[in-house]
Amino acid sequence: MTSSADLTTAAVGPAESTALDGDLPCPIPLDRYPRVLMAHGGGGRLTQQLIQEMLVPRFSNPHLAELHDGAVLAVEGNRLAMSTDSFVVSPLFFPGGDIGELAVNGTVNDLAMCGARPRYLSLGFILEEGLPMETLWQVVRSVERAAQRARVSVVTGDTKVIERSRQDGLYLNTTGIGFVPDGVEIAPRRAQPGDTVLISGAIAVHGTAVMSVREGLEFETTLASDTAPLADLVGALLSAVGSRVHVLRDPTRGGVAAALNEIAGSVGLGIELDEAAVPVWPDVLGACEILGLDPLYVANEGKFLALVAADAADAAVSLMREDPLGREAAVIGHVVDEHPGRVVLHSRVGGRRMLDLLSGEQLPRIC
Amino acid sequence: MTSSADLTTAAVGPAESTALDGDLPCPIPLDRYPRVLMAHGGGGRLTQQLIQEMLVPRFSNPHLAELHDGAVLAVEGNRLAMSTDSFVVSPLFFPGGDIGELAVNGTVNDLAMCGARPRYLSLGFILEEGLPMETLWQVVRSVERAAQRARVSVVTGDTKVIERSRQDGLYLNTTGIGFVPDGVEIAPRRAQPGDTVLISGAIAVHGTAVMSVREGLEFETTLASDTAPLADLVGALLSAVGSRVHVLRDPTRGGVAAALNEIAGSVGLGIELDEAAVPVWPDVLGACEILGLDPLYVANEGKFLALVAADAADAAVSLMREDPLGREAAVIGHVVDEHPGRVVLHSRVGGRRMLDLLSGEQLPRIC
Repeated sequence: MTSSADLTTAAVGPAESTALDGDLPCPIPLDRYPRVLMAHGGGGRLTQQLIQEMLVPRFSNPHLAELHDGAVLAVEGNRLAMSTDSFVVSPLFFPGGDIGELAVNGTVNDLAMCGARPRYLSLGFILEEGLPMETLWQVVRSVERAAQRARVSVVTGDTKVIERSRQDGLYLNTTGIGFVPDGVEIAPRRAQPGDTVLISGAIAVHGTAVMSVREGLEFETTLASDTAPLADLVGALLSAVGSRVHVLRDPTRGGVAAALNEIAGSVGLGIELDEAAVPVWPDVLGACEILGLDPLYVANEGKFLALVAADAADAAVSLMREDPLGREAAVIGHVVDEHPGRVVLHSRVGGRRMLDLLSGEQLPRIC
Repeated sequence: MTSSADLTTAAVGPAESTALDGDLPCPIPLDRYPRVLMAHGGGGRLTQQLIQEMLVPRFSNPHLAELHDGAVLAVEGNRLAMSTDSFVVSPLFFPGGDIGELAVNGTVNDLAMCGARPRYLSLGFILEEGLPMETLWQVVRSVERAAQRARVSVVTGDTKVIERSRQDGLYLNTTGIGFVPDGVEIAPRRAQPGDTVLISGAIAVHGTAVMSVREGLEFETTLASDTAPLADLVGALLSAVGSRVHVLRDPTRGGVAAALNEIAGSVGLGIELDEAAVPVWPDVLGACEILGLDPLYVANEGKFLALVAADAADAAVSLMREDPLGREAAVIGHVVDEHPGRVVLHSRVGGRRMLDLLSGEQLPRIC
C-alpha cells in the first residue's frame, strides 16, 4: 500500500458506514491538523484536544468522563476475566472491517472464550506521525460502533505518537474485562477424551479477505472479513448446555490448526479432525488456492471452536445454528486418548496425517 | 541510535541486573534464533516457543499457566480500577531503567493514582522483526523484576511482530487492574479551593535521563531515571490521611505543568504554583539548560502530585518523607477559586505568569 490515507477512501472502506457518518465530521479542524503530529502524543495541548474532542465524546460514560489516569469500576459477581490483544493488521481498512472493529471484536471474543460476559475495554493507540487525521477518525468511529454492538464500554485509554516511518499508520491495543457467570468453567484442562469438537461456522474467511487487498497480492473476490462479536452466541450456548461446554477457542492467528494444536498440547490429549466436515466456502477455497494456503491455517475473526461433552453436541449445534453468527455450525472432530498433544487430520481424500503447527509464517499482520 | 542491540550491551544498560542475570540465559536458542522473525508473531510453532519458553516461566502464576485467551481472576472488594498505557520510549534501555520496568511501573502508578492497590497486569508486545532475541529477553527479565517489586501478577499477554523498519525494536502495552479500598475516593472532581498541592519529590529526572542518551543529544550526566512503583507510598498516605486526599496524579508526559493544567481544567478551579518550592536537583537544572527545557514540563516516572485538604498537608508531607520514594516531598502550591482552569506560577524571581499547556512537542518518545 502507498499509505493508509489512500485506503480510507478506497473501495475497501466500509461503504455503509461512510454514508451513516456523513453527519459526524472529524472534530479536529482538518485544515489546521490534517495529519497526526508528534505533539499529539506529547501530553500538551494537542494531546488534550485529541482526547477531549475526538475520543471522550465517542465513548462517553461516567468512567471515561473522569479523565483520570484510569477508570474505577463497580464489580459484580466474583470472577473476572481479563484479556489483551494488540492489532497490527495491514491494511488498516479491508473488506468487511477495519482495525478498529477488529480490535473491539478480537478482545471481546477472547473474553467470551473464557466464558465471560465482556464489559469494559481499554484502548491504547500508537499513532504514526503523519497519519491522516481523517483516518484516525474513521477508526475511532469504527471502535465506537463495534463497542456499541458488543455492549462494552471503553473506560480508559492512552495515545502515543511515534515518528513517521513505514506508513503503517497505527497500532491498537485493546484490553478487556468481563465477568464469568456462576457455574461456568471454561478452560483447556477441562477437555476430556470423547468430547466433540464443534466449529461455529465456515473457516478462513478473515485471512483470505485481508490478503485479497494486501499490497502486491490484490485479487478479485467478494470475500469480506467475518469479524463479529461472539459473546452473545457463546452466552446462549453456555445458558443452554452449561457445564458440558469444556473448552472454547477462537481460531485467529494460525487458524483452526493452531488452535486445536494448542488445546491438544496443553491438556495432553489427542484430537481427530474430519476435514470434509469443516465448512469452507468455495470462494475461500479458491482464494486459498491462489495464495497457496491451507484454509485450516488461515485466521478467522468471527468463529469459535467448542469442545463439548458428546451428549451435548447435537443440542449445541442446533442452538448455534439459530443464530446468524452460527448458521453453519458443525461437528468437525473429537478428542481422543491416542496421540497425546497431536491433531490428526482425516483428509477429504481418505488419508490420515498429522496436522502440525507451522514453524514459519503463513500470513503476517492479519490481525 | 544505530540499533537497540547496541544499546543493550552499552553502558546505559542496567549494570547490576546483567550481573544478577548471568545465571539465567535466554531460553530461546540464540544460535538458531538470534533475532525475532515474523514467524514469532504468526501463531505457529515459533510463537508457541516464545510464549511457553520465554514468557510463561517468568510470570508463572495459575492464571497465566492456563494458556487461555484471557485470565479469569478472583474479585475482592467492590471497586475495580483499570488503566492502560503503551510504551514507545527510545532508546529501550536508558540510565536507571528500560522499557520493561517503565511499562510495569507506569501502569502500576496510574492505578495508584486512582487510589487502587495494583494487582494484575496484561502485557502486549509489538516486536519488530530483526529485534535481537537477547534484547527481548532483557526486557522480559526487567518486566519480571518490576512486577515482583510492585507485587503485581502478569496474568495474560499478547505478542505481535511487525516488519523491520525503523529499528525501534519493540513497543509494549501494559494494562492493569487494581482494587480500590473502601472509603477511598480519588478523582479530579474532588479538588476544592484551599486544597494544598504536594509533590512527592524532585522533578524532571526521568525526562532528562532519557534525553541524555538520545541519539544526537548525548551529554555527560550521572542522572538516572526515577522510575519506581508508587503504590506502597500512596497506600501509606491513604491509610494515614484517608479521605482528605482528594486528587492524585503522576506527572509523566508534559510534566508537572501538564498534570496541574489537566486537573485545573477538569474541575474548573485555579492552581497557584510556587516555583521556588518545587524540588529540582542542580544537575537536572543543568541538563534542562543544555536541552533548553523547563523542568516543569519534563516527564517524571517515580513522582506524584497530591491535592490534599489543607489541614492534612503537614501530616501528608511528614509521612511521605519517611519513605525513600518521598524523601523530598514538598508543598508546592494550592487550589484557588480565581482564574478557573488555569495554573499561575509564582516564579523564583518574583514574577507571576500563566503556566500553560505546551501546544508543541517538547520531548518525544519519553515513555
